[in-house]
Amino acid sequence: MLQERLIREIPELKIHGRTTACLEPLTLFWTASGFECNISGTELSVEVEVTYDTYEPWFSYTVNGDWVGRQMLPKGRYWIPLFRGMSAETIKNVQLYKDLQAMSDDGHSFIHIHALRYDGRFYPVAKKALKLEFIGDSITSGEGLFGAKQEQDWIPMFFSALRNYSYLTAKALDAEYRIFSQSGWGVHSSWDNHIKSAIPHYYKEICSLIPGAENRQIGGTIPYDFGSWQPDYVIVNLGTNDAGAFEQPGWLDEETGKWHKMHKNPDGSYADADICVFKNAVKDFLGILRQCNPKAQIIWCYGMLGIPLQMPICESLSEYAVQTGDRKVTYLQLPDTDDINVGSREHPGPLCHQQAAEVLAKYIKRLNMDK
Amino acid sequence: MLQERLIREIPELKIHGRTTACLEPLTLFWTASGFECNISGTELSVEVEVTYDTYEPWFSYTVNGDWVGRQMLPKGRYWIPLFRGMSAETIKNVQLYKDLQAMSDDGHSFIHIHALRYDGRFYPVAKKALKLEFIGDSITSGEGLFGAKQEQDWIPMFFSALRNYSYLTAKALDAEYRIFSQSGWGVHSSWDNHIKSAIPHYYKEICSLIPGAENRQIGGTIPYDFGSWQPDYVIVNLGTNDAGAFEQPGWLDEETGKWHKMHKNPDGSYADADICVFKNAVKDFLGILRQCNPKAQIIWCYGMLGIPLQMPICESLSEYAVQTGDRKVTYLQLPDTDDINVGSREHPGPLCHQQAAEVLAKYIKRLNMDK
Amino acid sequence: MLQERLIREIPELKIHGRTTACLEPLTLFWTASGFECNISGTELSVEVEVTYDTYEPWFSYTVNGDWVGRQMLPKGRYWIPLFRGMSAETIKNVQLYKDLQAMSDDGHSFIHIHALRYDGRFYPVAKKALKLEFIGDSITSGEGLFGAKQEQDWIPMFFSALRNYSYLTAKALDAEYRIFSQSGWGVHSSWDNHIKSAIPHYYKEICSLIPGAENRQIGGTIPYDFGSWQPDYVIVNLGTNDAGAFEQPGWLDEETGKWHKMHKNPDGSYADADICVFKNAVKDFLGILRQCNPKAQIIWCYGMLGIPLQMPICESLSEYAVQTGDRKVTYLQLPDTDDINVGSREHPGPLCHQQAAEVLAKYIKRLNMDK
Amino acid sequence: MLQERLIREIPELKIHGRTTACLEPLTLFWTASGFECNISGTELSVEVEVTYDTYEPWFSYTVNGDWVGRQMLPKGRYWIPLFRGMSAETIKNVQLYKDLQAMSDDGHSFIHIHALRYDGRFYPVAKKALKLEFIGDSITSGEGLFGAKQEQDWIPMFFSALRNYSYLTAKALDAEYRIFSQSGWGVHSSWDNHIKSAIPHYYKEICSLIPGAENRQIGGTIPYDFGSWQPDYVIVNLGTNDAGAFEQPGWLDEETGKWHKMHKNPDGSYADADICVFKNAVKDFLGILRQCNPKAQIIWCYGMLGIPLQMPICESLSEYAVQTGDRKVTYLQLPDTDDINVGSREHPGPLCHQQAAEVLAKYIKRLNMDK
Repeated sequence: MLQERLIREIPELKIHGRTTACLEPLTLFWTASGFECNISGTELSVEVEVTYDTYEPWFSYTVNGDWVGRQMLPKGRYWIPLFRGMSAETIKNVQLYKDLQAMSDDGHSFIHIHALRYDGRFYPVAKKALKLEFIGDSITSGEGLFGAKQEQDWIPMFFSALRNYSYLTAKALDAEYRIFSQSGWGVHSSWDNHIKSAIPHYYKEICSLIPGAENRQIGGTIPYDFGSWQPDYVIVNLGTNDAGAFEQPGWLDEETGKWHKMHKNPDGSYADADICVFKNAVKDFLGILRQCNPKAQIIWCYGMLGIPLQMPICESLSEYAVQTGDRKVTYLQLPDTDDINVGSREHPGPLCHQQAAEVLAKYIKRLNMDK
Repeated sequence: MLQERLIREIPELKIHGRTTACLEPLTLFWTASGFECNISGTELSVEVEVTYDTYEPWFSYTVNGDWVGRQMLPKGRYWIPLFRGMSAETIKNVQLYKDLQAMSDDGHSFIHIHALRYDGRFYPVAKKALKLEFIGDSITSGEGLFGAKQEQDWIPMFFSALRNYSYLTAKALDAEYRIFSQSGWGVHSSWDNHIKSAIPHYYKEICSLIPGAENRQIGGTIPYDFGSWQPDYVIVNLGTNDAGAFEQPGWLDEETGKWHKMHKNPDGSYADADICVFKNAVKDFLGILRQCNPKAQIIWCYGMLGIPLQMPICESLSEYAVQTGDRKVTYLQLPDTDDINVGSREHPGPLCHQQAAEVLAKYIKRLNMDK
Repeated sequence: MLQERLIREIPELKIHGRTTACLEPLTLFWTASGFECNISGTELSVEVEVTYDTYEPWFSYTVNGDWVGRQMLPKGRYWIPLFRGMSAETIKNVQLYKDLQAMSDDGHSFIHIHALRYDGRFYPVAKKALKLEFIGDSITSGEGLFGAKQEQDWIPMFFSALRNYSYLTAKALDAEYRIFSQSGWGVHSSWDNHIKSAIPHYYKEICSLIPGAENRQIGGTIPYDFGSWQPDYVIVNLGTNDAGAFEQPGWLDEETGKWHKMHKNPDGSYADADICVFKNAVKDFLGILRQCNPKAQIIWCYGMLGIPLQMPICESLSEYAVQTGDRKVTYLQLPDTDDINVGSREHPGPLCHQQAAEVLAKYIKRLNMDK
Repeated sequence: MLQERLIREIPELKIHGRTTACLEPLTLFWTASGFECNISGTELSVEVEVTYDTYEPWFSYTVNGDWVGRQMLPKGRYWIPLFRGMSAETIKNVQLYKDLQAMSDDGHSFIHIHALRYDGRFYPVAKKALKLEFIGDSITSGEGLFGAKQEQDWIPMFFSALRNYSYLTAKALDAEYRIFSQSGWGVHSSWDNHIKSAIPHYYKEICSLIPGAENRQIGGTIPYDFGSWQPDYVIVNLGTNDAGAFEQPGWLDEETGKWHKMHKNPDGSYADADICVFKNAVKDFLGILRQCNPKAQIIWCYGMLGIPLQMPICESLSEYAVQTGDRKVTYLQLPDTDDINVGSREHPGPLCHQQAAEVLAKYIKRLNMDK
């Protein structure tokens, strides 16, 4: 017989992704955040409450590890069927993933999960031996993983959690993972020189890059309890937008009246002073990451959209290692996008993410064996 | 500004799949049936009316040829958003596909399309130079194309139009296509010897294999107007269930009181008399196909789940060709399912369908060149 | 210490391919014929004696199953080093393969093996559980497996035993195999209507298609002792040249004064009378094969260069099966050559042979399981 | 009619690889060194003179860009047939490649080319637009590219020029290339801490790492004329053996009485002082490379056997760039060896070299476009 139960009433449910302690409802902020359950019975539905101003969220879900659905979420509070007609006795593993990133451009774009409706029983979800955190930009947000090659619109439809190298890497390693990412952002600034659109400024809170009162109210700006979930590997995939900033006009910080811009030399190379600024941002971020994740191996990945800042990144990593004695910091180059593996919006496509996941999973396996 | 328009008020819309003349609403019967439109504007929604007793339909859709969503359809009449936030000026090609086959086991499983809501303008859909019709069983219905390998439930969630070799073949050839298929059915009988569960009996009507009054009322049992859409190639992918019938108990036709069963000899080979019955069924079906499609090249495909009836099929084709002088009938073996390319429910998986589509598209290209 | 020993003095040596009882020297007639040995010691050389008028033989060899060398064989009697500098204690498996087919156009093209020079010890070669015989034309002779795509010269350099689907199939199945093949030949006639250039006429002798006194003298025309090596599977890959004969001018048999030609109807289809001739040739050959190989499963393969005669072949197989009650005869379509997998001389290239071997090995595995 | 001509009498012949000015005979020192010619006629043979004490050379050759033969070269002076029976009029491009590296362990291992025998005419070889120099260790010497996975013998049979990432990269870019490589060697020392077994010490001479009087006499120790062949890209693939030196016992330099050893800290990390020594060796080598190749883009590749020294290499590159202002120095990570792509002797196999060539060629194409 069908029954409905609130999320907080289902202790067997596993929550994925950074979120608040609140379960009435459970709010999904980040790409790939969601929930996972093991459940018997013939059917399962989820009650969501969806809000947004401009950017509607999408979600995907898997049954027994296989992707079965993906859809746009219109505004409102309503039930969505996840499966029906299945054998009552078998235990199904179901995972729901937010496909859209936390939106720094829309203070109202949220998925809230209220309840589940079902006719079976919940069972505990097995713990994974490995935990990964992915920190990145549009690449890690899965921008360009859906949509025809010619697509140029910057819309939620083209973002994906499940075609993402992060999902594929975690799957290959049988790992649990979280994503912290924002399209267009970098370590020091965004692609267009906004120095506030930098990942490190927001890393210590649950999800403080979403603007506005609503996010504050639901707890997005509360400090994140790093102790609650310590990753074995922190994978940083940043630098692509910092390189873009050298090609773009400057940005005026209206609060301070100061212009910010990364410069190139007349010969086309990057100006040393600005490279220095970038390197300091990398080193500072490494310090923050280490402080928050004392035991994690940090892997700085780069290359899915070219490697113009590879040398400064490597230098920063080694200077940080030398200065701090912290040797658990390494660099890994990922496969580049080309005519074959490109997706929509000139971003890495599904094939490029698969290639990247192979390289990354192989690398982590090797590191894991060395332990 | 958003406006709503009934399907019959949109002459630019192209309907795919066998259906009735009725557009208020448009009813989707078969796998891969749906509509296609070229439309400008920032958003598009579709109003569906969904009914079923046991087997809920699912749909998938593409934007500019790229698959973006797939979801289960609960009962009721409601709007589903297809895209939003896109550039107003660009013309988007949108195609909606029914993922579930016409259900011979559920007289109420239908998707009806009532209207579209949009803020752009419709443009004509370009005609394709090539038309394909696919006639088959569960393989052509895309059973097993979703779901983990261990899945055994026979449910709509695991059927797919878009991971289907028919879709992939049509895409490779830039062709328009229709599907006529039913899980478990064959040329002479179903896998369990039901001689009424045979594709040829229903080929001449729009969709007469759905039982019951509702289907009659909406026109599913009306003769299909073959003149309205003449395929260049008729691809038959049948025989797999006819082979299964040799392994299963007989079936009692309660109307006639007659038992039906395909027999094996003591040495495990197929009984000649029953092979003869099967061959006659194949030859009769070829006659029907030719009658309905006077100019089409008929390709009988086989092999995605083994080739036990390959010889009788080939014999039937040549006997038919010799007896009728009709030489536009050929045989093509498709790649077999194995441990690697298998999907759920022990059916060909996405990789096997890709392999089959490659072989089939290559073969049709060669035939096309010879013309 | 190095020693030389005649082939007949090495009982541990395993001979591959149809050949005579003579071991002083051992003569290699067919593609992939040669020897195999397990040997310790640091080095191994082979003494060959090579003759030819027009077409020089080539050979390839493997060490521990991995291909290490391939070279043209000039005329003369001389030593060829196979390995040196290896660890003395380890036992190496060495196999030498003739890359060139038996030459019906050169009565003097032979490789004779006289002796081995070595410093280790011979060990017995393990028996394989499975035996395969491949019967075919240029495809099975490996024509086109070496050489750039533009090559058109018909020369030994472009023939290969080791890139051949026969080698790859045998390797995938861990089987022992023999080849009986001739470029340009068919079941009824060659590509240019020579009815004496048909494989069945020569199947019962060791290697009677090589013309001239030398071949007679060394025993090529002696009846082959089928009892000495009974294959589990006979794989026939013929029909490609028989189809070619419909496109070519006729051939005058000067002995009989009779013209031979396969005809096409005005509409481009094959003339029934000639198809009948072809089918009889297929059925007759099946009879011969069964007589010589009473227990073998016969697989007729076709398709690596198109399938124009597929229907007549299938008809022949089933007519033969019905007429004789011999059910161990099946048909298997192999992957076609295309722009990607083509080799030199417009023949299937290495990729096409790999694809064919995958299909064939998968098929034999399935048949083997059914036993 | 066949004629013989000395190498120096064939001005159309193109010599590949670092060698002396002497053409009577032409000596092949390095991996992939050899000659290239465009020639008409039906046949071609080459007269070689081969010497060695321990390590016999092997060679491979291509006809019209396609690999056709590979064989071990016994001692002596003799003729080897390269092709015969080809169409007289067509112009064939033939390239002969030494498969074995210059041998620092065998002062007598040489291939000398004396003459060609042919019946056609020579034509000039077209110039390539791009020149590449590869500098490396066993990976670049192609060790492990032949031989079964279990092989452990260190013998010439397992070295290959043509399955090498250098050959594949050059082919993908239509480039001319040279190799300078030695198994077991590094930038600062060999894998076992011999500091004289370091590539930079020998870079300025033609081939001074071959010991002994014979090499001096034939000119191997003469300074190399860098002006004669300036590469557009210098690809360095070194560091793998320098990492090995941290794991091995020290080496006593008997001349100086000094021990040399790279040390690890108790926690398993590399000792800072020794890393400093390594980094200085890298920077010094970059200086040498720049001095010898003023305009070349230098790409330091690493990773085909893991990336333990990646950070020090990147640091060295950037420190060198900062200190010298030389910005044409970049780092590129290549795909790692794994269970799938491994070859013999636990070295990268053919698949790994293909993967590396794809990454490297893609990277060079991108750099080339930026120019």
